Amino acid sequence: MNSKKPLILVTNDDGINAPGIRFLIEIMNDFGDVVVVAPDSPKSGMGHAITINSTLYCEPIVINKNEPQSEYSCSGTPVDCVKIAVNEILKRKPDLCVSGINHGSNSSINVIYSGTMSAAVEAGTQGIPAIGFSLLDYSLDADFSHSKEFIKRIVSECLKNGMPEGVVLNVNIPKISNSKLKGIKICRQANGVWEEKFDKRTNPLGRDYYWLSGKFVNNDKGEDTDEWALENEYVSITPTQFDLTAHHAIKNINHWNL
Amino acid sequence: MNSKKPLILVTNDDGINAPGIRFLIEIMNDFGDVVVVAPDSPKSGMGHAITINSTLYCEPIVINKNEPQSEYSCSGTPVDCVKIAVNEILKRKPDLCVSGINHGSNSSINVIYSGTMSAAVEAGTQGIPAIGFSLLDYSLDADFSHSKEFIKRIVSECLKNGMPEGVVLNVNIPKISNSKLKGIKICRQANGVWEEKFDKRTNPLGRDYYWLSGKFVNNDKGEDTDEWALENEYVSITPTQFDLTAHHAIKNINHWNL
Repeated sequence: MNSKKPLILVTNDDGINAPGIRFLIEIMNDFGDVVVVAPDSPKSGMGHAITINSTLYCEPIVINKNEPQSEYSCSGTPVDCVKIAVNEILKRKPDLCVSGINHGSNSSINVIYSGTMSAAVEAGTQGIPAIGFSLLDYSLDADFSHSKEFIKRIVSECLKNGMPEGVVLNVNIPKISNSKLKGIKICRQANGVWEEKFDKRTNPLGRDYYWLSGKFVNNDKGEDTDEWALENEYVSITPTQFDLTAHHAIKNINHWNL
Repeated sequence: MNSKKPLILVTNDDGINAPGIRFLIEIMNDFGDVVVVAPDSPKSGMGHAITINSTLYCEPIVINKNEPQSEYSCSGTPVDCVKIAVNEILKRKPDLCVSGINHGSNSSINVIYSGTMSAAVEAGTQGIPAIGFSLLDYSLDADFSHSKEFIKRIVSECLKNGMPEGVVLNVNIPKISNSKLKGIKICRQANGVWEEKFDKRTNPLGRDYYWLSGKFVNNDKGEDTDEWALENEYVSITPTQFDLTAHHAIKNINHWNL
């Protein structure tokens, strides 16, 4: 029997003080030795951004001295946090990286904008089993309590079975409601899209500026999608890959006259 | 015969003044009506970041009054540029979006960090045929001349054949050398990874900081990859998708005890 506890890296994109990551840390302390390396401020919508033309700070921080985990606050993006954790902070490669719990959905096409999921993907590229968790509630005082049993079940199975190579998990959890969640569905990413609207304003100096304010639209009627699962009160798990090759299109484009 | 000229959106991540985009604009003017919406400053490594907690500026700019294209300089990321172009600036959906020419490679795993490719992917999510072009030369005075014939050939075939649904093209072009390029290969993304090193320094106030400085390592020996093509003096085209579902892993994870 292996008596060594798993080493678990925790990060997010809402910042190290966000309720979602505090809740996730508490759960992860039951599974192993936890090291937190997370952004010092909110970094939502950062996608897979990295800091290449500027400096990075990353310093130990104690948020609650009664909690067992080590924590580091980093000035960079979620992906920076994973890179610096793996290469500068952790003594060995972690057994698992969990990212979140994000305040807001990362289902469907949201995965490509998501700092939460990009952190998990970055860990995946380094050969670390990784899971991003997101709750479908953007509010800062979101209730995460119902997500605990699902996170425990998924983390436990991931540590037991290992992760398929080149895959990370995108887990989305419906907002709490009066009815109990029905269970977990393994899904594909729904073919949704953002329809953007820009709110145009004029600043006090007379210069026009914009706020991005779009609407997510899902036209994918499939019942095997993350959107379907979430609408029907299931937790969705979308296995997600970072080989972006459209393998099926290679043959097609080979017919072009290049 | 359709006499209407194609409407072509041009963007990049090195900024509107970078030599790479200036070269690309010149080529695209032969194909249709060109509108440029590009970052006002370099935004390399921004991945699919979007600006959600801050304002965006996007204003007309004339860089060379003898050139026919319309141009807009935007304070946001490459993905912001595409969103604002499509939703605020262009009168109709463009027939093509081209991004680049990036100063530096976006082959293999680099695609996930790349602002150039994220701009193309964003256009793809909006149903716009899109191509990212990158030259394997990071220098600001890179010689783009040899890429012209390949870009023309690829754009011409794309306008003729259309793009497979859910696919954008990631085109990488070897640096100029004494030998002529051998042609074009349709490839898969090589399974490479960044091995990071952090350069740790101390600032004048005594606080430690880091510079990210990694090395790209390709352990993928396949001869069907973009890395292989580029090393062997071919232009690589990697069809790239934004459905990140690891479809092959759904069955596997359905066997977990969830």
